[in-house]
Amino acid sequence: MIKAGIIGATGYAGAELVRILTTHPKAEIAAISSVSFEGKAISEIYPAFFGLNDMVCENAEGVVEKSDVVFAALPHGLSQELGAECIIQGKVFVDLGADFRLESEEEYAEWYGGKFLDKGLHEQAVYGLPELFRDEIKGKKLIANPGCYTTCSPLAIAPAVKGGFVEAKGIICDCKSGVTGAGRKPTQGNHFPELNEGFHAYKVASHRHTPEIEQTLSRLSGEKMTVTFVPHLLPVNRGILATVYADIKEGVSFDQIRQAYEEFYKDEYFVRLLPSGAAADIHNVRCSNFCDISLHFDKRANKLIACGAIDNMIKGAAGQAVQNMNIVFGLDEKTGLEFIPPAF
Amino acid sequence: MIKAGIIGATGYAGAELVRILTTHPKAEIAAISSVSFEGKAISEIYPAFFGLNDMVCENAEGVVEKSDVVFAALPHGLSQELGAECIIQGKVFVDLGADFRLESEEEYAEWYGGKFLDKGLHEQAVYGLPELFRDEIKGKKLIANPGCYTTCSPLAIAPAVKGGFVEAKGIICDCKSGVTGAGRKPTQGNHFPELNEGFHAYKVASHRHTPEIEQTLSRLSGEKMTVTFVPHLLPVNRGILATVYADIKEGVSFDQIRQAYEEFYKDEYFVRLLPSGAAADIHNVRCSNFCDISLHFDKRANKLIACGAIDNMIKGAAGQAVQNMNIVFGLDEKTGLEFIPPAF
Amino acid sequence: MIKAGIIGATGYAGAELVRILTTHPKAEIAAISSVSFEGKAISEIYPAFFGLNDMVCENAEGVVEKSDVVFAALPHGLSQELGAECIIQGKVFVDLGADFRLESEEEYAEWYGGKFLDKGLHEQAVYGLPELFRDEIKGKKLIANPGCYTTCSPLAIAPAVKGGFVEAKGIICDCKSGVTGAGRKPTQGNHFPELNEGFHAYKVASHRHTPEIEQTLSRLSGEKMTVTFVPHLLPVNRGILATVYADIKEGVSFDQIRQAYEEFYKDEYFVRLLPSGAAADIHNVRCSNFCDISLHFDKRANKLIACGAIDNMIKGAAGQAVQNMNIVFGLDEKTGLEFIPPAF
Amino acid sequence: MIKAGIIGATGYAGAELVRILTTHPKAEIAAISSVSFEGKAISEIYPAFFGLNDMVCENAEGVVEKSDVVFAALPHGLSQELGAECIIQGKVFVDLGADFRLESEEEYAEWYGGKFLDKGLHEQAVYGLPELFRDEIKGKKLIANPGCYTTCSPLAIAPAVKGGFVEAKGIICDCKSGVTGAGRKPTQGNHFPELNEGFHAYKVASHRHTPEIEQTLSRLSGEKMTVTFVPHLLPVNRGILATVYADIKEGVSFDQIRQAYEEFYKDEYFVRLLPSGAAADIHNVRCSNFCDISLHFDKRANKLIACGAIDNMIKGAAGQAVQNMNIVFGLDEKTGLEFIPPAF
Repeated sequence: MIKAGIIGATGYAGAELVRILTTHPKAEIAAISSVSFEGKAISEIYPAFFGLNDMVCENAEGVVEKSDVVFAALPHGLSQELGAECIIQGKVFVDLGADFRLESEEEYAEWYGGKFLDKGLHEQAVYGLPELFRDEIKGKKLIANPGCYTTCSPLAIAPAVKGGFVEAKGIICDCKSGVTGAGRKPTQGNHFPELNEGFHAYKVASHRHTPEIEQTLSRLSGEKMTVTFVPHLLPVNRGILATVYADIKEGVSFDQIRQAYEEFYKDEYFVRLLPSGAAADIHNVRCSNFCDISLHFDKRANKLIACGAIDNMIKGAAGQAVQNMNIVFGLDEKTGLEFIPPAF
Repeated sequence: MIKAGIIGATGYAGAELVRILTTHPKAEIAAISSVSFEGKAISEIYPAFFGLNDMVCENAEGVVEKSDVVFAALPHGLSQELGAECIIQGKVFVDLGADFRLESEEEYAEWYGGKFLDKGLHEQAVYGLPELFRDEIKGKKLIANPGCYTTCSPLAIAPAVKGGFVEAKGIICDCKSGVTGAGRKPTQGNHFPELNEGFHAYKVASHRHTPEIEQTLSRLSGEKMTVTFVPHLLPVNRGILATVYADIKEGVSFDQIRQAYEEFYKDEYFVRLLPSGAAADIHNVRCSNFCDISLHFDKRANKLIACGAIDNMIKGAAGQAVQNMNIVFGLDEKTGLEFIPPAF
Repeated sequence: MIKAGIIGATGYAGAELVRILTTHPKAEIAAISSVSFEGKAISEIYPAFFGLNDMVCENAEGVVEKSDVVFAALPHGLSQELGAECIIQGKVFVDLGADFRLESEEEYAEWYGGKFLDKGLHEQAVYGLPELFRDEIKGKKLIANPGCYTTCSPLAIAPAVKGGFVEAKGIICDCKSGVTGAGRKPTQGNHFPELNEGFHAYKVASHRHTPEIEQTLSRLSGEKMTVTFVPHLLPVNRGILATVYADIKEGVSFDQIRQAYEEFYKDEYFVRLLPSGAAADIHNVRCSNFCDISLHFDKRANKLIACGAIDNMIKGAAGQAVQNMNIVFGLDEKTGLEFIPPAF
Repeated sequence: MIKAGIIGATGYAGAELVRILTTHPKAEIAAISSVSFEGKAISEIYPAFFGLNDMVCENAEGVVEKSDVVFAALPHGLSQELGAECIIQGKVFVDLGADFRLESEEEYAEWYGGKFLDKGLHEQAVYGLPELFRDEIKGKKLIANPGCYTTCSPLAIAPAVKGGFVEAKGIICDCKSGVTGAGRKPTQGNHFPELNEGFHAYKVASHRHTPEIEQTLSRLSGEKMTVTFVPHLLPVNRGILATVYADIKEGVSFDQIRQAYEEFYKDEYFVRLLPSGAAADIHNVRCSNFCDISLHFDKRANKLIACGAIDNMIKGAAGQAVQNMNIVFGLDEKTGLEFIPPAF
């Protein structure tokens, strides 16, 4: 059994890791930590786990020591030192934060306000979006697990960008996220009566996931891409829908694009390319590691419209982190992740 | 008192008309009709009205006869004959359906599959979006009340289009609507357990409101415009948010555009241009006739992003219809419509 | 115009007072205050009010001075001194908190942990539940506005208790409240993802509204009554449903009880006794000052089951406070409160 | 592998059976049927299953033939003949409908309007509530799977009734159910805009689950019991909370009762008796087979208040049916049912 440790287990991504790893057939949770709740059982924080996982939060050092793989679900900026320590101790480190996601230190500084403490470490890091970069993940020690918007948006448009079917310029990602994306901490904006029956955009064209989406798409296209990214907040618990708009290049047909998607994702268990006529719905991927994609064609404006739906806490965080662990440890990628989404 | 009749009073738009007109200080409901519920009280259908309006549904002929102004909230295709009859009888006719909205019979045929029964009648019809075409509405007898998406999207982008600040090509309206937009009839897609905690696009780039949005924007710009329109279904009762994307022309600054909006809407009671930094939220316009607009700038891609929020059943249907009635009858436009949206 | 001041205007009850009084035809808001947001506009806190009421919060002293009637929507314990000051200055004082609700200082000490600072003041206070104690309210200066559960539960069972149709012993109030009842302050328990799709009881048989319900029912029956009161938290914004159970006395028929209710409430505009077969629903009283009541009979156990539904923020707080103001100032009780609940 | 057949696979209980059995390690779905959707894939009805279970609905006869165990999720009244046929063919029959639940033909006639077609068959039937009647289930061929309210309410009060700690008379079950309990068919009452932000009781003291709850409690107490049962409809997808009220007998202490519960449920994996101070919440049992129970004491009225929470579609339907299958086939009762409820 792989011994897994979770740093920051009481946040939402951490809690979802606890839930998934508790039933993983090839891994067991060695220890969990939380700065805010040290000494408390995870099931005191999340009574859903009562009697099923009553592990007590300890400190980060203890977790690292007991684990083969360390998952860090920390606020941005706290993972660089922890990651360094894990690598020194020979552990696999899967970071659910943003510290190792951007290759460019300049962009990291611009969007997150920090710098790379150890450039060598950043060079070892691999961006853990398996459907696009699986080969690089195998056997690596330091995995930068993508963010939620940055999983969903690129997967929705990747085959079109990689195949050169759409213009590199002018891509728009209009995204809508459930509330868990904003974390466990109660705020006025997420207070039930002020969010329920509401809907609005936030951080318009200024969200930190922008450079991460651009980095992924640029790697696929081979040229520097700029995207317009607008996130919105949905009054639901889980899920992200990305509606991605791109201009189809002259001479390219929508059918060609659809075929390219089918080819691109034909062996991907966790990507479900929906039949023509269907529309991706966050309802259908809840509590699962799937990314559903539907393709649409605006023939009047010659635009490709691709919708991608994920559970932001699973494929957009904890599930993908476990998928990365599976890859690193040579397991079948689906191990412990074959959740069928509930029908209702 | 203006005598108002409501044809199709038991649908959602009709019921909202009943509610608004029941407290209107200068109008009174003369009669209401419903094909499905003839002989039943409106408060049997909507127990919220119990004791406050218990009028009984009669047939359409009786309603026309008793009324100075007839509101028709009917499925598309049923208003042309009714409208003709009202005009013959000298009534004002406010149609909440689509029959008189499109100026081009060709487009009507393409999107709705019907034809203009009486071209002269269509020429008398005026498109009732007061903030854009108020002068044409005054004193008219036949008002085509805009649809919900087609109120919200054009209002959000109108000053930019009219001022020539953005490219005519490539405008995208990514819209999200509450469930009442789909009407009162229960369907599998709107069944609570299948919609709640879900979110998806529908009728992507093929919704009938597309030519109506284009018609309005084309009138403002003076050139034929094509827009990409993608509606989505939100798990909330009321509200539409339109997130509209447009490319800013070279040499135009975002500040210029903001000033143009301020000028354009400075005397419009029902349009609230939000302060910089705010984002329009459907939560804040519920149960009111307001359209909240927020402006955002993607400086990296030089795009204008305008968000417009309305209550789809009020500013997007019944409220605007009453606003049109007020204009036609020379009342203060706000009469009976000064609802303050609830804070929660 | 009556000059009204609101102390604690930025809490939920205060904000609802602002909304209602802004459109009241016989009153105007003279000033508002907030400890937390002094110097800020109410519309900065609640953007729904933007452009409609942008009054700036000042301090409590200023509000009292400018007002004929002072509404206090404060945490429990802060109203006694303020009330005393208002009475000295000759103002009408309507307290939405609990400080003046209980007649028994002993019970106040037991449930709230405080004492009566000025017993004479408490003797002047009248309990402002107009449908039960209207005659006492007229012309009074100090009104203790009932709580939300304590409006809904007594109204649902009052005619049965007053008429002596049910046993005084064993009454159960199983109540379910929307989230606004817990106030504006975000907490873990009210955080959207943890409340949405959830439902649970809280403060079981230990909620502070218990003695207040008992006081009202005891006044009606003339004997000391004890009730079992269990509140639950509903994942909706507004509304309380009270399901009240009582044992029907031997020899009393359900029809007798129904007739007694009809007689009891026949002149009450704000109480709607629903037809047989209907069930009171919080959906149908939202944003209104109505209390809907439905009566049900368990003939197998010979129990009366009465359901009462209110909007907890209106009939359960701000609306009732305005109703009390109307009574005190000799206005028609409905003035400014004739909101028709939306049908959806 | 046990070959399982599902009759009525496209209803909500059927779909949940499909989902659970698709990942059951000791059973496989042999065939599924649906009258309405014969020839269609289950994943066309429930796109959440797309690619994971695309089995096509056939007719009932084919399903019986191919199966070792037949689950029937049919409208009431359709299971008696099917059950007879299954028994003749030597299959195990688990009926999720009500046809075999009531032992008394008289009560069946009163509440369901039908009669027992084959009394011998009814005598073979066993009521499948494992935590209360496990010993009778083992090795049986015909299992009447309890309804949702009738699982939750009895489990919440069973130890108190069985132990004789509470009065047999006067027990009240105030229950609140999510919308899936009303099934897949869209109706006006379950239409999103009319249910969302609403809450009401229905079938007050007249719901068909009443005699079933009474039968279970009467078996536990040894005397004929009558309960007051009032169901309400919650605007959530899944879950039932039963708040059960009972009068504590003289001389019995609340601590005694709590100890009796601990003893009663100490070996029950699927019942979680919550710590003192906690309150059972449907949020914490979603998508799991658990029943959470919290105990509360109204010392002023000397009442026991027990709250029980289940997922109505799992412990209240499909999960319990699989639990019964596991028992009948001698498997570990938890097999295929160890779902950890999501934390949010």
